[in-house]
Amino acid sequence: AAPARPAKLGQCVACHGEDGRSRIAGTPHLAGQDETYLVNALTAYRQGRRQAVPMNTIANTLQPRDIAALARWYAQQRAPGSRP
Amino acid sequence: AAPARPAKLGQCVACHGEDGRSRIAGTPHLAGQDETYLVNALTAYRQGRRQAVPMNTIANTLQPRDIAALARWYAQQRAPGSRP
Repeated sequence: AAPARPAKLGQCVACHGEDGRSRIAGTPHLAGQDETYLVNALTAYRQGRRQAVPMNTIANTLQPRDIAALARWYAQQRAPGSRP
Repeated sequence: AAPARPAKLGQCVACHGEDGRSRIAGTPHLAGQDETYLVNALTAYRQGRRQAVPMNTIANTLQPRDIAALARWYAQQRAPGSRP
C-alpha cells in the first residue's frame, strides 16, 4: 500500500516536491532514493554532521519517527525520468 | 546522444553501479539525479565540506572535468524503479 502522507511533509515540498522530483537545480531528487540513505542524510543534518541551507533548520524540527516516515515516503515515490 | 563513459567511472561502480543503481543499502542511487547536485556533492567531498567514507578519498583523485563527466553520466542514467 502507498505510504501514509508524513505529518511534516509540508516542509519538504517547496524544494523537493511532494513526489520527490526536485523543483530547483542543485536540489536533489528524492523519489526512489535508497531509504536508509535518506534516514542517514536527515539524521546527519539533524546532528550537524552535514550542512546545507535550509536542511539543518528543518531537520531540527524532526523527530526520529518523522525522519523514518519522510524517508519511506520519498523512497517509495516513482523516480524522476521514469514513465508515469 | 548517450554521454561518453567517464575515465574515472571505475571508482564509482562498486557501490553506485555503472547505471547509478546503488548496490548497498545506505549508498544513494545516482541514476537520474540532478546534475548540479551531483557536481556540488562531489566538489564538497573534494573540499572536505562533506564527509563520507570512501567519498573524500575518491573525490581527491578527481579533476573538475572528471566531476563534470561523472555528474553528467549519472544524471542521464535511467532512474531506479523506472521501467527499462
